Amino acid sequence: MGRDVANRRLRAGIVGGGKGSFIGAVHRVAVELDGQAEVVAGAMSTDPQRAEESAKAWFLDRSYASYEEMAEKEAARPDGIDFVMVATPNHMHYPVAKAFLQHGIHVVSDKPMSFSLEEAREEVALVEKSNLIFAVTHNYTGYPMVRQARDLVRSGAIGEIRKVMVEYIQDWLMDSQENSGNKQAAWRTDPTKSGIAGSVGDIGTHAENLLEFITGQKIASLSADLSTFVAGRQLDDDANMLLRLENGAKGLLTCSQIAAGEENNLNIRVYGTRAGLEWHQMEPNTLLFKQPGQPTQIYRTNAAYTSDEAKAAARTPGGHPEGFYEAFANVYKQVIADIRRVESGEKPLGGYPTVYDGLRGMLFISKVVESSQKGATWVDMNA
Amino acid sequence: MGRDVANRRLRAGIVGGGKGSFIGAVHRVAVELDGQAEVVAGAMSTDPQRAEESAKAWFLDRSYASYEEMAEKEAARPDGIDFVMVATPNHMHYPVAKAFLQHGIHVVSDKPMSFSLEEAREEVALVEKSNLIFAVTHNYTGYPMVRQARDLVRSGAIGEIRKVMVEYIQDWLMDSQENSGNKQAAWRTDPTKSGIAGSVGDIGTHAENLLEFITGQKIASLSADLSTFVAGRQLDDDANMLLRLENGAKGLLTCSQIAAGEENNLNIRVYGTRAGLEWHQMEPNTLLFKQPGQPTQIYRTNAAYTSDEAKAAARTPGGHPEGFYEAFANVYKQVIADIRRVESGEKPLGGYPTVYDGLRGMLFISKVVESSQKGATWVDMNA
Amino acid sequence: MGRDVANRRLRAGIVGGGKGSFIGAVHRVAVELDGQAEVVAGAMSTDPQRAEESAKAWFLDRSYASYEEMAEKEAARPDGIDFVMVATPNHMHYPVAKAFLQHGIHVVSDKPMSFSLEEAREEVALVEKSNLIFAVTHNYTGYPMVRQARDLVRSGAIGEIRKVMVEYIQDWLMDSQENSGNKQAAWRTDPTKSGIAGSVGDIGTHAENLLEFITGQKIASLSADLSTFVAGRQLDDDANMLLRLENGAKGLLTCSQIAAGEENNLNIRVYGTRAGLEWHQMEPNTLLFKQPGQPTQIYRTNAAYTSDEAKAAARTPGGHPEGFYEAFANVYKQVIADIRRVESGEKPLGGYPTVYDGLRGMLFISKVVESSQKGATWVDMNA
Amino acid sequence: MGRDVANRRLRAGIVGGGKGSFIGAVHRVAVELDGQAEVVAGAMSTDPQRAEESAKAWFLDRSYASYEEMAEKEAARPDGIDFVMVATPNHMHYPVAKAFLQHGIHVVSDKPMSFSLEEAREEVALVEKSNLIFAVTHNYTGYPMVRQARDLVRSGAIGEIRKVMVEYIQDWLMDSQENSGNKQAAWRTDPTKSGIAGSVGDIGTHAENLLEFITGQKIASLSADLSTFVAGRQLDDDANMLLRLENGAKGLLTCSQIAAGEENNLNIRVYGTRAGLEWHQMEPNTLLFKQPGQPTQIYRTNAAYTSDEAKAAARTPGGHPEGFYEAFANVYKQVIADIRRVESGEKPLGGYPTVYDGLRGMLFISKVVESSQKGATWVDMNA
Repeated sequence: MGRDVANRRLRAGIVGGGKGSFIGAVHRVAVELDGQAEVVAGAMSTDPQRAEESAKAWFLDRSYASYEEMAEKEAARPDGIDFVMVATPNHMHYPVAKAFLQHGIHVVSDKPMSFSLEEAREEVALVEKSNLIFAVTHNYTGYPMVRQARDLVRSGAIGEIRKVMVEYIQDWLMDSQENSGNKQAAWRTDPTKSGIAGSVGDIGTHAENLLEFITGQKIASLSADLSTFVAGRQLDDDANMLLRLENGAKGLLTCSQIAAGEENNLNIRVYGTRAGLEWHQMEPNTLLFKQPGQPTQIYRTNAAYTSDEAKAAARTPGGHPEGFYEAFANVYKQVIADIRRVESGEKPLGGYPTVYDGLRGMLFISKVVESSQKGATWVDMNA
Repeated sequence: MGRDVANRRLRAGIVGGGKGSFIGAVHRVAVELDGQAEVVAGAMSTDPQRAEESAKAWFLDRSYASYEEMAEKEAARPDGIDFVMVATPNHMHYPVAKAFLQHGIHVVSDKPMSFSLEEAREEVALVEKSNLIFAVTHNYTGYPMVRQARDLVRSGAIGEIRKVMVEYIQDWLMDSQENSGNKQAAWRTDPTKSGIAGSVGDIGTHAENLLEFITGQKIASLSADLSTFVAGRQLDDDANMLLRLENGAKGLLTCSQIAAGEENNLNIRVYGTRAGLEWHQMEPNTLLFKQPGQPTQIYRTNAAYTSDEAKAAARTPGGHPEGFYEAFANVYKQVIADIRRVESGEKPLGGYPTVYDGLRGMLFISKVVESSQKGATWVDMNA
Repeated sequence: MGRDVANRRLRAGIVGGGKGSFIGAVHRVAVELDGQAEVVAGAMSTDPQRAEESAKAWFLDRSYASYEEMAEKEAARPDGIDFVMVATPNHMHYPVAKAFLQHGIHVVSDKPMSFSLEEAREEVALVEKSNLIFAVTHNYTGYPMVRQARDLVRSGAIGEIRKVMVEYIQDWLMDSQENSGNKQAAWRTDPTKSGIAGSVGDIGTHAENLLEFITGQKIASLSADLSTFVAGRQLDDDANMLLRLENGAKGLLTCSQIAAGEENNLNIRVYGTRAGLEWHQMEPNTLLFKQPGQPTQIYRTNAAYTSDEAKAAARTPGGHPEGFYEAFANVYKQVIADIRRVESGEKPLGGYPTVYDGLRGMLFISKVVESSQKGATWVDMNA
Repeated sequence: MGRDVANRRLRAGIVGGGKGSFIGAVHRVAVELDGQAEVVAGAMSTDPQRAEESAKAWFLDRSYASYEEMAEKEAARPDGIDFVMVATPNHMHYPVAKAFLQHGIHVVSDKPMSFSLEEAREEVALVEKSNLIFAVTHNYTGYPMVRQARDLVRSGAIGEIRKVMVEYIQDWLMDSQENSGNKQAAWRTDPTKSGIAGSVGDIGTHAENLLEFITGQKIASLSADLSTFVAGRQLDDDANMLLRLENGAKGLLTCSQIAAGEENNLNIRVYGTRAGLEWHQMEPNTLLFKQPGQPTQIYRTNAAYTSDEAKAAARTPGGHPEGFYEAFANVYKQVIADIRRVESGEKPLGGYPTVYDGLRGMLFISKVVESSQKGATWVDMNA
């Protein structure tokens, strides 16, 4: 569009992510990791003092009391931010994104993309007419072995997909953390901030996105059984689902935040007519490729035999573990490259989750809740 | 009842399990492993020559052309068999068991226990009036770490169970093996021999049994989505299910014989209000005990800290792997001890899967097929 | 030589292995597992009552008060034992084996084969002139994946071997068990029963044998640092060694019975000019095949792609774990087949560890102790 | 000493690490990861054009043609660098460090710290009189689970240490990479750049450092067998060693760059009178704590039960994998905090590897080579 982005790191701003936030620091580390961007401005909390302290702790040049002010003033500066990172609770994702989009600033939004499906549809429309880069942080797509998994599917090595099993299970909400002063727990279990879903919105959408990312198949219909095991909680903390994919494959998806003893156990298995795949987020540099009648093969991050896309997502030689930050940074790596492109008049290349993936996640949430409310019966994703 | 079983190995007979059978040899090894029984007679095939050759290969004293003849003649001999092992395809399980029960001979039957639910109910009635020992080879209950898992649940260490995930996935029927001369595949995919279910009867019942064995909870209702992926096959080769247990816990169960690259991957995870459990049949001497906020503990077969029942199911010091045969032999170990007891006028102690577990498996098959036929809707296990 | 061994199980006798022994039951299970032999006679303890009770618990036909009597009487019977299993403490291995060899009875001896290197040399001479089958229970060679590993080396897939790492570490003697009534510990730490070495004789010889079995290379020289960590103990309970193999490869060997928290951790890694191998006894059905620049491959017991020898050592389909008993039984399987052969006038085929492997183990013990006594300096295995 | 370091990121410079270097990017990511420092200047190559291009790719403010010029000019600027990172081949480590130390600039040096033991001793003297922070990048000490391991030793949970096993094995030099245009391989195998050792200097020193870091024990003597397997290579590419520690413990250390199929397999096991430990760099967020007679415990990065030091080295909730970069950044985190302290007149707190660890590494190299040259005999580390 015309900013001069050559010969400098891009300038990023952040909304939310202040002191005490887990995800704020993740965004900062991830966006700066490749030395292609630096965070210079923020509206890091709705509490002015906390906003100020948070910005100071990060040595930011500019701290704002509100995201509206930030959007307006940054858009007006010649050295204003090139893009904003939205790291607020869910209900603010869309309003914040909207403000920056309307000021011509590129956006990277946390997921779920919005508070409601309606908002998500508005957001798509807004992005479509904006010509701005808009990404959603389905960060698990950034792991090299997830890229490798997708490439194995694309290459035909798996054959036609028949069965998919995806799980995202944790235990951090197995007790009533929201009543013990845990802010992370409080907003995630509050329907006025989180939306109509709890665990399904927070982590189920990652599972859904990972499944569709790797398999290249969309969920056609689902039957979901949501539970709330912790007394007094208003949103689901566990969900089990049957899936049918568009190509006729069948699937299971479960997410849970009450699975005692589980940390952050996201994993996926895909079985086709020719071979199977297995990947675990907690040991992310390993991917199992399972061919019937052949020894299972252990694919490893950045090994010589990995695909170009998998290699592009890796930074260190095999055996030097890459983790959560590096995967998250891979989303930013492609976003930053695309911002450079569009600002230089080139076409964006993509590769990161977009507003359409965000919409897909909101549709998933909506359908899962609908299915569960109807007694865990089948609902069509496209109806 | 009056046989003199002191100071000798018990005498076992086998029906089925002739040359080329996998399960025949398993029964022989398992029943003889502890030196408490020996196989002396058999009707090992409906093909007379194969029956003869099979018996000779095992150095059996007596080979019969039919199970009816065997039941009659063995019952008449003073040194006749104490019990019979039924290792035929499914449709013959009940007729064979019935013949021996009617001749006063104890029975160990393969699963699923019968061809139909009706037969299973008859079988229960027959056993109840017989005063004979009747066991079903849900052999996976025999692993020491499965016993340990049950004991951890019973002890309260897991708390109230909330979520259960059980899988039994293989790949050996991912292609049309039944048309390539594979006898094992042929009868398992033939509804006249296997019954109304394929993978659900063959392996799904093991998963169901394992779940109920470890958790002590019964499945209250289920919603099952069965698939037949291999063209021309008449029975299911894959199934995904949502479960609700009697105590309010939720569950997922899947079985598959088309999961490319999977050998014999039976595994279970149980999550309660206090802790979680994880066990994998393919590395059976390890059980993970997962307490939130504590390091996960690796329980190992025959370690000092294991429960009495787990120790009773182990034979070698920790680190000397025990496997499939040893677990299978644990079913026989308790069966043989009970036969010795009842023949000596004592009460049986149990511990192995009984005719009621067999009935439960047949009910499960029936309900799963019903659910799937109704469009993967919920059916009540007790309706 | 002329016994009629057709159409019957072979008859085995046992010396030692009475009540309380771990290895006695292992021999019984292993020798009978394939239904090709049965234990019928024993001199199971030097304590007559314990001998009697032990034999009765196994339903043996004949119990003897001494091995001398047993050798004499069994040799004289038309239905006498075909072979004897020597399951005594080390100092009795040779006297017992000698007695049976001299009566024309085949022998399977526990390791280390004898009390001293001199005895081992006598034993070789005795066996060489006897024309009897003589095997040593280096049972870890019986695992299918160990056979597979050897076949990968033989096939050239590993290339020229450069580096070998073998470990056998346990913790059961990390405290002074020998003073707490543990009979197993007592004789193993007693130089009058165990010989000149402790851990090196008990488990180090297994490591040495496994290394030479898989690599096909002999240890040319070694430098060994033996330790006795438990106060008051007379023999080594830990050993670290540098090795040089005949082909120029280098190696590390360690054995320990004071490695806190280790059960029975025998493992080996082999690296050549083309690829590497890794195997762990505690998960014995998996073998890693590591090719540089290629995904590591997971070989599994009885998979379609395994070698003929590996398949011959497996009994169940992939994914049905085979363990310690089954591996031990593979030694007996080949021994029994060879006894049938020689009794039928055929040539033995071997495949199991022989008197020469036993001699090799005794030489290893001798050289290791010599090296350590000289200050952990290099000694030549052939000097 | 008087720079004003408040309210700003520290300014770092780099020598070496230009295009094509693996370690250059590691330093940049690691030093900037916590947002406490930024790289602003560099002398990134001895090739002027490559230096320029490398600096430009990183958007550095200042690029120098030589490290001497950089040291002089940066020292003279009011906004000059606070510290330098030395990322050159080994032979330049000391000259570069010396230049910056002499200009009053703090130093973080790659390991091995110098070309020769003599240089290392000079370097210690220089640092001692300088009052500057000097760190050596034994980055593997930065992993949270390595810190946890050390804390378990310190707490007495392991008891008195008896046995240590440490390995660092790779395969990337298993062929003659140095003759195929691989610059990394070329200088590492060149005695004029690498020093008297190959694999021992490059990775063996990491193993030595890790052992001493975790156990708190020093190596007292060693017997090392070095090999050069690749034809034409001048330095060792494999080493096996026996160790004796100061407290009487025994150990094994091996490093190799010809272990086919191994990526970057650094691992350590420690066994004491009370418990054992096991850690693998390639799955760095897991630490096994092995208590005899108790279930092995799986410690995990940033879990609630981990030690304060382990927690301080972690950034994300359990289950979000932290990797190589994050561990490396932990060295910088403590270095930067100490630079802030000393510049503010406070005492440094340490926690990172220092010039004394660097000296220790050079002593280790010297003694290992001496031992091997004397025929793999014992040498005293303090003689």
